[in-house]
Amino acid sequence: MIIIMHPHVTEGEIQGVELKLESLGLKAHVSRGVERTIVGAIGDERKIHKESLQALPGVEEVIRIVKPYKIVAREWHEADTVINLSGVPLGGKAIQVIGGPCSVETPAQMELSAQGVAQAGCRLMRGGAFKPRSSPYAFQGTGVEGLEMFRAAAAKYQLPIVTELMDVRMLEVFMEYQVDVIQIGTRNMQNFDLLKEVGKIHTPVVLKRGLCATVSEWLMSAEYIAAGGNHNIILCERGVRSFETAYRNMLDVSAIPFLKKETHLPVIVDPSHAGGKAWMVPALSKAALAAGADGLLIEMHPTPCDAWCDADQALTPQELSRLMAELRPLAQVLGRELTN
Amino acid sequence: MIIIMHPHVTEGEIQGVELKLESLGLKAHVSRGVERTIVGAIGDERKIHKESLQALPGVEEVIRIVKPYKIVAREWHEADTVINLSGVPLGGKAIQVIGGPCSVETPAQMELSAQGVAQAGCRLMRGGAFKPRSSPYAFQGTGVEGLEMFRAAAAKYQLPIVTELMDVRMLEVFMEYQVDVIQIGTRNMQNFDLLKEVGKIHTPVVLKRGLCATVSEWLMSAEYIAAGGNHNIILCERGVRSFETAYRNMLDVSAIPFLKKETHLPVIVDPSHAGGKAWMVPALSKAALAAGADGLLIEMHPTPCDAWCDADQALTPQELSRLMAELRPLAQVLGRELTN
Amino acid sequence: MIIIMHPHVTEGEIQGVELKLESLGLKAHVSRGVERTIVGAIGDERKIHKESLQALPGVEEVIRIVKPYKIVAREWHEADTVINLSGVPLGGKAIQVIGGPCSVETPAQMELSAQGVAQAGCRLMRGGAFKPRSSPYAFQGTGVEGLEMFRAAAAKYQLPIVTELMDVRMLEVFMEYQVDVIQIGTRNMQNFDLLKEVGKIHTPVVLKRGLCATVSEWLMSAEYIAAGGNHNIILCERGVRSFETAYRNMLDVSAIPFLKKETHLPVIVDPSHAGGKAWMVPALSKAALAAGADGLLIEMHPTPCDAWCDADQALTPQELSRLMAELRPLAQVLGRELTN
Amino acid sequence: MIIIMHPHVTEGEIQGVELKLESLGLKAHVSRGVERTIVGAIGDERKIHKESLQALPGVEEVIRIVKPYKIVAREWHEADTVINLSGVPLGGKAIQVIGGPCSVETPAQMELSAQGVAQAGCRLMRGGAFKPRSSPYAFQGTGVEGLEMFRAAAAKYQLPIVTELMDVRMLEVFMEYQVDVIQIGTRNMQNFDLLKEVGKIHTPVVLKRGLCATVSEWLMSAEYIAAGGNHNIILCERGVRSFETAYRNMLDVSAIPFLKKETHLPVIVDPSHAGGKAWMVPALSKAALAAGADGLLIEMHPTPCDAWCDADQALTPQELSRLMAELRPLAQVLGRELTN
Repeated sequence: MIIIMHPHVTEGEIQGVELKLESLGLKAHVSRGVERTIVGAIGDERKIHKESLQALPGVEEVIRIVKPYKIVAREWHEADTVINLSGVPLGGKAIQVIGGPCSVETPAQMELSAQGVAQAGCRLMRGGAFKPRSSPYAFQGTGVEGLEMFRAAAAKYQLPIVTELMDVRMLEVFMEYQVDVIQIGTRNMQNFDLLKEVGKIHTPVVLKRGLCATVSEWLMSAEYIAAGGNHNIILCERGVRSFETAYRNMLDVSAIPFLKKETHLPVIVDPSHAGGKAWMVPALSKAALAAGADGLLIEMHPTPCDAWCDADQALTPQELSRLMAELRPLAQVLGRELTN
Repeated sequence: MIIIMHPHVTEGEIQGVELKLESLGLKAHVSRGVERTIVGAIGDERKIHKESLQALPGVEEVIRIVKPYKIVAREWHEADTVINLSGVPLGGKAIQVIGGPCSVETPAQMELSAQGVAQAGCRLMRGGAFKPRSSPYAFQGTGVEGLEMFRAAAAKYQLPIVTELMDVRMLEVFMEYQVDVIQIGTRNMQNFDLLKEVGKIHTPVVLKRGLCATVSEWLMSAEYIAAGGNHNIILCERGVRSFETAYRNMLDVSAIPFLKKETHLPVIVDPSHAGGKAWMVPALSKAALAAGADGLLIEMHPTPCDAWCDADQALTPQELSRLMAELRPLAQVLGRELTN
Repeated sequence: MIIIMHPHVTEGEIQGVELKLESLGLKAHVSRGVERTIVGAIGDERKIHKESLQALPGVEEVIRIVKPYKIVAREWHEADTVINLSGVPLGGKAIQVIGGPCSVETPAQMELSAQGVAQAGCRLMRGGAFKPRSSPYAFQGTGVEGLEMFRAAAAKYQLPIVTELMDVRMLEVFMEYQVDVIQIGTRNMQNFDLLKEVGKIHTPVVLKRGLCATVSEWLMSAEYIAAGGNHNIILCERGVRSFETAYRNMLDVSAIPFLKKETHLPVIVDPSHAGGKAWMVPALSKAALAAGADGLLIEMHPTPCDAWCDADQALTPQELSRLMAELRPLAQVLGRELTN
Repeated sequence: MIIIMHPHVTEGEIQGVELKLESLGLKAHVSRGVERTIVGAIGDERKIHKESLQALPGVEEVIRIVKPYKIVAREWHEADTVINLSGVPLGGKAIQVIGGPCSVETPAQMELSAQGVAQAGCRLMRGGAFKPRSSPYAFQGTGVEGLEMFRAAAAKYQLPIVTELMDVRMLEVFMEYQVDVIQIGTRNMQNFDLLKEVGKIHTPVVLKRGLCATVSEWLMSAEYIAAGGNHNIILCERGVRSFETAYRNMLDVSAIPFLKKETHLPVIVDPSHAGGKAWMVPALSKAALAAGADGLLIEMHPTPCDAWCDADQALTPQELSRLMAELRPLAQVLGRELTN
């Protein structure tokens, strides 16, 4: 940690900082420059609150030099983590596309969805039984019944399932239905009690980025899960909020290479929520893989016009098949593998 | 709802939209312009998903014309709502300043805090027993024990207490300790299960704005609580995330007059989190009241340098007293009341 | 400047940084921590490009510790600067409200505008003869003829005039018409050639903040003008771009106290562009003054509905008078002066 | 244009809107819904100011239904525009990579740069003689002398040159040195006088997106150039400003498919400024092409550590060659051509 002192700092104020650091078990290293004096704190800075130094008299700014995350950092674990999703590997060379509807509606819709996902060559299926909706008057999901429909439809095609958990009290039911991959949604990225709970189990977790979370905050949320003991974490970029109103969100493609450098965890992209329109999905899917993503989370519905939510961003089964056919040679030219 | 059709739309596509609207119980009203045909949907548009129309062939854009919120809208309830916080009124003419530490630490710290709050002339006290921290390694709050310390210290000075609820499973404990006002934090503004639970009780709720929530999304979160039956809602602006790195958040002062026009609920401001620095609190507090806010939520700590979190944004008891002395004549010149 | 080295840095890389610093005339001060080695650069860091150090092998991050601005910094000039606008002081205790239409239209409109401004008690008048419009098909201003109309109308009421300069080639004409205060608009905040030109004269300049300029970039643009020799600079906050679509811009009220700490230059606020709606102007004007602003730039039009641009954000003369009557006691309670 | 009236609108207010529309030469079409009355304006809405309707009594909101741009819109020109850059085609199937240093420094540096660009297989060269720098104390470019060095070095390798114009007064010099492609930088995207000047000539223009310009504003700036008669416009996405501090800008990859749908003009990407770090350039370059970009603008310097600006984002000649070798098969798999 580096403490930059005010231009007109007094000796007493510098000593105050030294004493505070010592009381925290760190050594101070004072360096007097032409315009500013700076104090370096030597020792494990993860133990100190930046703010408690910031509040000392004579301090202008405090800068961390060590990253706040540890278990998820590539600095501490060089090799790419490959996650086993009930038999399907994600990460390393293996790219996976997770397809399926926004929400679980009826057994027939789920049967057609699972068939479409399997026929397109995807090896994992998504679908929401519990839906986070901004309006209390909107469809809130089919709930536990939805989990059951999803489980049944996916089983027929041997597809592991990915579904969102919103409420800590539902975790037990998720375990009962043997949900293969738990999704933590954008709005819950900093629902710390929920993160702690999924940290206690071993089911893989897809952690979506918050609407305007920095990459560092996002990795700290992953660290919450990891600190509990669950290291099976997949980060999912889904577009961030911006000033641009022409599309639903702005896909932060720069986050992909940045994350690959900072963390060993796999990174996937949700082009459906990022663009908010079905016609944008192919371009964004290709951009994501080209930037280094390890997978995609794509919305598909047997008949998008009748979907109970996000109807305008779902691909048809045919469109998903066509896209998969385009992604396979792309993956190859990028040195990756996208297999059925 | 207005449906704008593509420039090269066909008659069949227009009919498709008309049929869809009829099937949803609305009437279609087609208007053929020079460059575009538009279809107006007449009836209660709150029942329809914008996206399901957006997905129809020939549709370029769908625009809502009715606000999605109802119970919280001023359109449906003209008079300002005044909320009774265990005897202390907030809203209407009455301005309230809620003071207290970021987190509950020790009985002695709480005793000094309560004393400072009361002596400054504040009639409500804040303090966090459960803390949402971005790092799993940071202090997470003193928990239930903290609630107990808070209750005891505040009781001595007859101060109703405001404290944050993060986990649905803790609501019962909050009821047991007779928390006077429940705060829903920034990171939980769209934790819909939590909103539903506090909607079932009658304890007043301070609903903080999400880090980058639009005013409309924020009002929809309030609508979640109201739809459950709890109309005792106070909105709290606490700064939003922006591109500016010079201060922690950007206080969205424009939201205040906008909210006053859109909703009858009281609006307060948290200048401590908005600025992130104690020295910014007075200026932002005055700006908030001048813009029309009904109250303030201000961090104060008996000895800020020793605070266990957010040390650099807390005022000392003396600074809070001084600020209160400046705010009183300001409130008066604005036609409001800030009384002890 | 502080150079943070990679965790696995080699001795050779550290020496590389030391040599580079020496070649730039600075001394290196190496500090070996537990997880990181850092190198402090001692000397005048304003002379070095951060990027050229960043590009050296083994370097992770380079952090400036000295502010990049100097002439405009309060660190180098403690007292508030008061600017003389053709006899009207702005800054220090004196608050000024600059009123007038968005654009100069006709002699009659300007006569009524000047009358309205004077009657409301404003001592300075605004109006645009050259208009920056996002569409090439929109009204582009009345140009030189407009300057003439403006000059004539304002002279009758002894009002110094504030008007926008967009094109370096027009500066001579501005001098000819004795424009009292030159406004540099939002879109030209980083039009460096224009800044250099107005730096060569002594006419006071109102420098509007760029749409998403950081406070630091804004101060650097002021430094461009100051470096040329013109220290008569007024900073004007006019709302920044954000994710919020409910209002035109987001008034960054936090910038006001921050600027007051960083610079000795006066700061004014344009509540008309910030809110984009006439009904928001009173609340935002009060918030600006309460936060410490030294003045306001307010749009007023004799008949807003007929205005040739920004019709929905102009006050009527009556509304401006009413607002001025509210601002005077507010200024007083804040310890400032707003006199006719 | 659609005018949405207030819920409690009066008949007189509706008639006021009808009269106003008639006076502007448009027909009104009133539609009375359950909660709102809306008025459709039939005729050429490009002629009306939205704000002058917005200011009428009883009006809640005015919504444009026609895009404000015309010449640059794909709606009016379906085929992709291919631009001839002194013999090198950009657009359609042809992808081009424009390489070269951030700034023109010395004849030797330019000679090595041109050689590196040519050897990597790029067919166009970039380099800045006039530099927009946020600090007045930073290197401002080598100016006219730089243009001369650039011209000489590029000629040797038959590379058309791309260089930035900042000041209208320099256009003549640019014509004299036969600059092949004029770049309008980010900070000048809304320098309308500059746009008008380059609209009068026929030299191709690379128009960079403003730091936080919406796609619509950007297209309107292109429309400024096109309205003057110069249709040789290339749009360049270079990352936008966001809340994320981990990288210099956020590459808005979503803008690429969106622009391809809205306009017939070619779109290129500057991955160097978007990421701000040389190591991010390959990933972002691939993402840009995969999303549909027609070209790239990449910074390369013979010895990045010695570059006079942006040293940390320039590739070495070897890195550029390696990247080109990776981009060629990628272009092919995407159905495009990237040839030497």
